[in-house]
Amino acid sequence: MIDLTSMSKPQSVAVVGASPKPGKIGHTILNNVISSGYGGKIFPINPKEEEIAGLKAYASVSEVPQPVDLAVIAVPAARVLDVARDCGQAGVKSLVVITAGFKEVGAEGLELEKQLVETCRKHGMRMLGPNVVGIIDMHTPLNASFSATSPQKGEIAFLSQSGAMLVAILDWSTQVGLGFSKVVSLGNKADLSEIEFIEDAAADPNTKVILCYIEDIVDGPRFLDVAARAARQKPVIVIKSGTSQAGAQAASSHTGALAGSDLAYDVAFRQCGIIRAHSMTELFDLAVAFAKAPVPKGNRVAIVTNAGGPGIITTDNVEAKGLQMARFDKDTIEELRANLPAEANIYNPVDVLGDAKADRYRFALEKVCADPNVDSVVVLVCPVGVTQPVETSEAILEMCKKFPEKPIFAAFMGGESLAGGASMLAKAGVPCFTFPEPAVASISGLVKYNEILETPRDDGTNGLPSFDCKGVKAIFYDVIKDNRLVLLGSEAAEVANCYGIPAAPVVLATSPEEAAEEADKMGYPVVLKVASPKILHKTDVGGVKIGLKTAEEVRQAFTEIMDNVHGYMPQAVIYGIEVQKMMPKGTELIIGMTRDVQFGPLIGFGLGGIYVNLLKDVTFRLARGLNTREIEQMLRETKAYTLLRGYRGEKPRDIEALVDTIRRVAALVNDFPEIAEMDINPVFAYENGLSALDIKITIS
Amino acid sequence: MIDLTSMSKPQSVAVVGASPKPGKIGHTILNNVISSGYGGKIFPINPKEEEIAGLKAYASVSEVPQPVDLAVIAVPAARVLDVARDCGQAGVKSLVVITAGFKEVGAEGLELEKQLVETCRKHGMRMLGPNVVGIIDMHTPLNASFSATSPQKGEIAFLSQSGAMLVAILDWSTQVGLGFSKVVSLGNKADLSEIEFIEDAAADPNTKVILCYIEDIVDGPRFLDVAARAARQKPVIVIKSGTSQAGAQAASSHTGALAGSDLAYDVAFRQCGIIRAHSMTELFDLAVAFAKAPVPKGNRVAIVTNAGGPGIITTDNVEAKGLQMARFDKDTIEELRANLPAEANIYNPVDVLGDAKADRYRFALEKVCADPNVDSVVVLVCPVGVTQPVETSEAILEMCKKFPEKPIFAAFMGGESLAGGASMLAKAGVPCFTFPEPAVASISGLVKYNEILETPRDDGTNGLPSFDCKGVKAIFYDVIKDNRLVLLGSEAAEVANCYGIPAAPVVLATSPEEAAEEADKMGYPVVLKVASPKILHKTDVGGVKIGLKTAEEVRQAFTEIMDNVHGYMPQAVIYGIEVQKMMPKGTELIIGMTRDVQFGPLIGFGLGGIYVNLLKDVTFRLARGLNTREIEQMLRETKAYTLLRGYRGEKPRDIEALVDTIRRVAALVNDFPEIAEMDINPVFAYENGLSALDIKITIS
Repeated sequence: MIDLTSMSKPQSVAVVGASPKPGKIGHTILNNVISSGYGGKIFPINPKEEEIAGLKAYASVSEVPQPVDLAVIAVPAARVLDVARDCGQAGVKSLVVITAGFKEVGAEGLELEKQLVETCRKHGMRMLGPNVVGIIDMHTPLNASFSATSPQKGEIAFLSQSGAMLVAILDWSTQVGLGFSKVVSLGNKADLSEIEFIEDAAADPNTKVILCYIEDIVDGPRFLDVAARAARQKPVIVIKSGTSQAGAQAASSHTGALAGSDLAYDVAFRQCGIIRAHSMTELFDLAVAFAKAPVPKGNRVAIVTNAGGPGIITTDNVEAKGLQMARFDKDTIEELRANLPAEANIYNPVDVLGDAKADRYRFALEKVCADPNVDSVVVLVCPVGVTQPVETSEAILEMCKKFPEKPIFAAFMGGESLAGGASMLAKAGVPCFTFPEPAVASISGLVKYNEILETPRDDGTNGLPSFDCKGVKAIFYDVIKDNRLVLLGSEAAEVANCYGIPAAPVVLATSPEEAAEEADKMGYPVVLKVASPKILHKTDVGGVKIGLKTAEEVRQAFTEIMDNVHGYMPQAVIYGIEVQKMMPKGTELIIGMTRDVQFGPLIGFGLGGIYVNLLKDVTFRLARGLNTREIEQMLRETKAYTLLRGYRGEKPRDIEALVDTIRRVAALVNDFPEIAEMDINPVFAYENGLSALDIKITIS
Repeated sequence: MIDLTSMSKPQSVAVVGASPKPGKIGHTILNNVISSGYGGKIFPINPKEEEIAGLKAYASVSEVPQPVDLAVIAVPAARVLDVARDCGQAGVKSLVVITAGFKEVGAEGLELEKQLVETCRKHGMRMLGPNVVGIIDMHTPLNASFSATSPQKGEIAFLSQSGAMLVAILDWSTQVGLGFSKVVSLGNKADLSEIEFIEDAAADPNTKVILCYIEDIVDGPRFLDVAARAARQKPVIVIKSGTSQAGAQAASSHTGALAGSDLAYDVAFRQCGIIRAHSMTELFDLAVAFAKAPVPKGNRVAIVTNAGGPGIITTDNVEAKGLQMARFDKDTIEELRANLPAEANIYNPVDVLGDAKADRYRFALEKVCADPNVDSVVVLVCPVGVTQPVETSEAILEMCKKFPEKPIFAAFMGGESLAGGASMLAKAGVPCFTFPEPAVASISGLVKYNEILETPRDDGTNGLPSFDCKGVKAIFYDVIKDNRLVLLGSEAAEVANCYGIPAAPVVLATSPEEAAEEADKMGYPVVLKVASPKILHKTDVGGVKIGLKTAEEVRQAFTEIMDNVHGYMPQAVIYGIEVQKMMPKGTELIIGMTRDVQFGPLIGFGLGGIYVNLLKDVTFRLARGLNTREIEQMLRETKAYTLLRGYRGEKPRDIEALVDTIRRVAALVNDFPEIAEMDINPVFAYENGLSALDIKITIS
């Protein structure tokens, strides 16, 4: 883990390009550094000035007589490289390069950016930027940015790849009373990226939740490692833009980012425990929830309301979000029954009725919170005649104190008449909304995080045997020497065998006699298929013969296939004919792999056969770190799973063998990055064991 | 259409139970009637008072010397019936019964409610309630409710089955500046329901959009008729609670409403052109959108932004909502290129850059709005240094005037620094949000409504031939006489034939000879199946023989089946053995019907065969009014459609015949409400024609 102290908690800061003129970025930055209450040394750098804002100015960083931890650079792009060199020579530890005009403006800018990174490397400096708004740490305190708004101090770290988004959020945050621990504008991410700042924020005792707006990820594997560790320390919530086809185009024209496919991001975030937000509102609702509320121990929600309709809507929402309506203990129900009016609904949602004052809310809330079958609570208040919003808020706050392990969220459904109560809750840090839906959505986020925390870590390598890597290498060597990228079926089966993937026996024969001999060895019936990388649709050219039951049939089929193929495609290079044992029909599955540019191999599993593209019953995981539990979860997500467990009276299939095989496929594609694509379709699953019938491997 | 003038625009109002004591409901109601500025006559009714609020009070309605249009009743439940009778005798036209304590409290209350309805019927009065907050018409003006808040005048009609929800929304609305034309608390809906008030609001010139919160629908067919007509006059947006299993329980314990299945509601709303909101926020965002913005002509959205990141997020949202990013005309692109800075993005999303002042926004907006490929526009403003929020708002308002047919929505992403501009837009009626997502969601709602408007009306009966109803009746008569509810396969095929549904030939035979004769007639091969309503799994008892090719095989199979079945189930009543012609294998489909308690028969279509429950590729429509266009849409929603169009090189299937058959099935189940369930699985679809193989019909 790298040390970002010199950036977020520096002993001294130089502002290069500091200016006495209001309106200049260099003026705003210096002003922000000073007015943020920063306690270290501040050095304005400007060759034309003697003094700025009452501080002695220097012509260059190297002229500063004291050590400089952090230099914030806001000079024209053409001068940035010189300034960086000067900083390097002066022993500056960190740079924040505000200046734009680098990678984002084209090839020339990219070249300049590369030189800038080299300069930093040479002098051992780390750099944020270029093209950033700056960095703010509210607990240092230090505002080294040109943001017009200084945020409130709080517990949310916010990292943003979009500067405008960051500025917009800061402006908005002061209005809604949201506070931050750190705010980092990531810009072009030429050196430091979200990875280092996520790691830094995870270790920061002042940060309770980490928020990221990102458009791309530069180093997928490292991101996954860091994020997976960070996510177990505190919640990491990401909004990743560029999910759409058109959005990805806009993203790349904007920051030159190469957007990975959205599926891979989805899978990657999920696997490393990142919570993905799908709108700005969701992002900040979750931020507040995590900053203010405890993480519940489970997904059972209780609702206390003074009106039926809102209770029903909230119940709908609880189910729609995959949460459960808590079923109360008998004791809870008895106590509610004994003490609430007869017309009250004492089951969940608890309806304390329209004439409920604060004391009735307090009573019901206390009983519900104390129930061991309740993990979190939503309180709904409608402004009917006798409602006591302020006193009801007090009751809610009491319960928050008394049951600190259970999140309590409120929806005060109204305006002016409830404002006093609602603002009391907000001030005390209890999330309070106008409508119930965001309250439920927030609880759903907390519950998701609890599931992440409760998932044991397991990188998937436990108990894996060692595989015959040498065997695989030897096969690939031959394929490459033969100037091919696609393996023959027999080669792919050999590769599979090296990793213990149960391939159906298949052997390449070059003569009718050899084919018959091989068939005799493996046992009948067999299939013969022409082996030629150029022939994609073997059946169409008469290149396949099935159900061969004797050596004689095999010899004859061999000759027929050769004749057919020569007839249809006289110029095709034929490697021979594959003899494959016909396996008994099992449940048809597919196991496949596609490689994502950011996150590496993705393993797919689902219903196989010729309808695989039609039914689209395929679920994905990153091969990296794929463990047994995740594979089992993967199976459960598919319709194929219903078949595997025994559909319509059939015997269950060998799920254990299937999980094992998927692990082996993952190990294979992790070990050999040269495998570009792999498809096993179909895999036949039996009551005992599997058979991988048609294995396709493409290398790069 | 009934006339609700005496309720929403009465000449005179009596408040029964009017009270001089603040805090009493009868006090609040009278006060609201007076202070709403109501221009008609007001009569407080209270036997103990001479005068209330400066108005002469009467002991009963019948003592009022002038005609009373509307009586608002707020006396204890036990006295309501007497009051209603008195009103009836006095010639009152409409009642609003505020009083609770009827259906919602149990059997006794239900009885009282029935008597109340009878009293109204007897005297020709219409009634809103009981158990309501009241009714408000802001344009009469008349506030005949006990709501503590008087809403602002506006163009939204809001109907709510939950009184608390209504009160909450009114309280909230004044804070956010939302105005209403009408507000109706529906309560127990003993007489008038959402149906009459939707119809009334549709005809009301002061209402632009109709909002409903409903928990159940009492008269499904009438609701569909009225809503379908209303939805073509103005948008009808409904939030229907009780969608979840648990929610439905809460709903029925709350108002004793019998909740229909959510699927049926979804299908019904869609088919009659209602827009369904899924959260309170969405409901009111859509309300504002429809009240303030024009309905766009299509789904092509343009984005103008001063920052890349928010532009990308918005683009993602546009695609996620099924809208399209507009592709600009060449001219538009050229003009943008010529007049915007070189770094600006001139394609959609248009990025006018962070240094854009109002004039650049105005220029870009004007070009984009004028582009014929743009149907609606989202303007994003981030508070970067030079932003001119107020002037930019002025530019937006200019464009709204200049292009009144294109909705322009704004997201002013910030707080204080943009507040001036944002509130200017809000005041001028241009929807302005903090984040872009709700802007896009609103446009998506408008686009959906445009599609509803553009869909030609067609009740599905055009060109349908007349069917052999008598034939069907005769079969049902025999089945009922036989004390059965499930038709034999041969009977079901006969029913199908009466409606021109292409059933595979099947005949019931009672002897080996008869079976052989029938097989000879229909041609070989044939299948024999035991016909016995008690035997559900015919194969399991040896009750099926397939692939019979000669008369001799048929005779033998008949005897074997009889022996098998007698062996397994000696006590089963056997009607004979069905001889069915084996049809060539086609694409396996299912056509089925299930009956919803509120909306009648639902037709399902999708992939058939034994995996139908596994694949769940089935889509539904109401049989009522099902037309060719809807059926075609239905087919397109399924994966089966990919097969039908010719999958992997296969020839396309006879889609026309399929559509025709679904229409015929719909006609059959519409004509015969006694058909409780119907399943045709599989239907084989061929290149030419179909064959309905296994038809199951259950009657009630």
